[in-house]
Amino acid sequence: MIELALVGIGTGNPEHLTLQAMRTLAAADLVLIPRKGEDKADLAELRRTICAEVLRDAKTVVAEFDLPVRDAATADYRRRVDDWHDAIAEVWMQTIAEHPGARRVALLVWGDPSLYDSTLRIAARLQPPPQVTVVPGITSVHALTAAHAIPLNEIGAPFVVTTGRRLREDGWPPGVDTVVVMLDAGGAFEALDPQGVEIWWGAYVGMPEQITVAGPLAEAAPKILAARAEARARHGWIMDIYLLRRRAG
Amino acid sequence: MIELALVGIGTGNPEHLTLQAMRTLAAADLVLIPRKGEDKADLAELRRTICAEVLRDAKTVVAEFDLPVRDAATADYRRRVDDWHDAIAEVWMQTIAEHPGARRVALLVWGDPSLYDSTLRIAARLQPPPQVTVVPGITSVHALTAAHAIPLNEIGAPFVVTTGRRLREDGWPPGVDTVVVMLDAGGAFEALDPQGVEIWWGAYVGMPEQITVAGPLAEAAPKILAARAEARARHGWIMDIYLLRRRAG
Ligand SMILES: C[S@@+](CC[C@H](N)C(=O)[O-])C[C@H]1O[C@@H](n2cnc3c(N)ncnc32)[C@H](O)[C@@H]1O
Ligand SMILES: C[S@@+](CC[C@H](N)C(=O)[O-])C[C@H]1O[C@@H](n2cnc3c(N)ncnc32)[C@H](O)[C@@H]1O
Repeated sequence: MIELALVGIGTGNPEHLTLQAMRTLAAADLVLIPRKGEDKADLAELRRTICAEVLRDAKTVVAEFDLPVRDAATADYRRRVDDWHDAIAEVWMQTIAEHPGARRVALLVWGDPSLYDSTLRIAARLQPPPQVTVVPGITSVHALTAAHAIPLNEIGAPFVVTTGRRLREDGWPPGVDTVVVMLDAGGAFEALDPQGVEIWWGAYVGMPEQITVAGPLAEAAPKILAARAEARARHGWIMDIYLLRRRAG
Repeated sequence: MIELALVGIGTGNPEHLTLQAMRTLAAADLVLIPRKGEDKADLAELRRTICAEVLRDAKTVVAEFDLPVRDAATADYRRRVDDWHDAIAEVWMQTIAEHPGARRVALLVWGDPSLYDSTLRIAARLQPPPQVTVVPGITSVHALTAAHAIPLNEIGAPFVVTTGRRLREDGWPPGVDTVVVMLDAGGAFEALDPQGVEIWWGAYVGMPEQITVAGPLAEAAPKILAARAEARARHGWIMDIYLLRRRAG
């Protein structure tokens, strides 16, 4: 039976790697690295760098594979994602089959494998089913709060983590004064009444390219939109995340 | 000016330590370790083990200090916590003053420093104000999802992180189907209608003592309560966390 380890690697700072992640990678027979195409080349490169560092003295084989693309012709969003996950599972199985001696297989997962990531769902599609283990990683949520040196929650209070799409469609989530927003295609906070809201925003958090902006939402919003557009144009890609807090009440 | 690094160390597995955490500790002149009294002795011991390992070749001085206790005579909860944080800040300042050569000071923080932790709020009380940096850590939330090999969120959906007290008082949080509960003095999930709810529970997650229980809430609840009482009696202390998910709708 294949042992498949999903290894959280943190959010772009190679020093986010834990001892457990390093030990798991070094103990693997095979490490799979996805290639996503030109624009996100930096991220495959980071995975290669991590492997080169960690596997220096190990006998682990590193295999790259091309990530299939989503079929834009499939109209239904959920169906499109499901088909895509099936296709990725297929490529994993092919790549593993090309290395018949490999029993311990590892996959590097951005941030933490449980947070807005499909790796666990793809792993559940593999046939025969492998024994899956997860190595937790530093998430972009905590890379953001660390970059700003702020608490995530207020004392004893709850918080919500959500997506840009949900914030834009549903507005401020009920019952909380702190909201973390991920996977925002750009400026979903513009859909909110900025009165009494503060924002802590970060792009490329933990990476050399890191940019942060913080302040009252009304003042910070235009700065963030400008910084985001400029950085995106310059790097060809962007990943950003933010925390919103409003006065309790 | 003092540089104060708040270093996330993960949730009890020494292998949760990141390269950044190790480098920061080794570069410190002084590391402060709180002693909490007998019952939680294991946690101070873990901090000592980490320091001994990481600081083997470093010139860092490790100083232990006794954590003041909360004054039970102060009736108001918020006031009691505020006074307590003032008292801790006072002890930090004394301990730092005893090492006049120390410019880079580090504190080991359980899990991640942003998540239900008072270290940042205590640091904000120091006089003169230090330059504070935060090193993110593996949280108990991600140690829990890793232990169960489950996703934290459903695809594109939000989730809430809250406390046992809030769950018990306010019931299921509005607008979400996934809730993570921390700081539960015991069995706050009993206040919920278990119909259609699944639970993934873990105590001492990431530690050798780790226990997990998962299943439909109605069936798992009595098992968890029994396992919790037994483990608590045996170890003299417990830390547990759980994820609740209900069928969407
Ligand atoms: C598909 S999710 C993966 C999250 C990842 N599993 C984690 O634990 O952070 C991608 C989203 O994570 C956030 N993200 C990940 N890395 C980031 C970084 N270095 N800086 C800012 N945001 C980041 C962004 O919101 C991005 O849209
Ligand atoms: C004061 S909070 C600190 C949280 C910490 N900063 C983190 O990032 O996980 C303490 C709560 O965290 C959770 N916790 C921390 N470590 C844990 C562990 N090893 N196993 C289970 N729960 C844990 C429990 O819910 C506990 O009541």
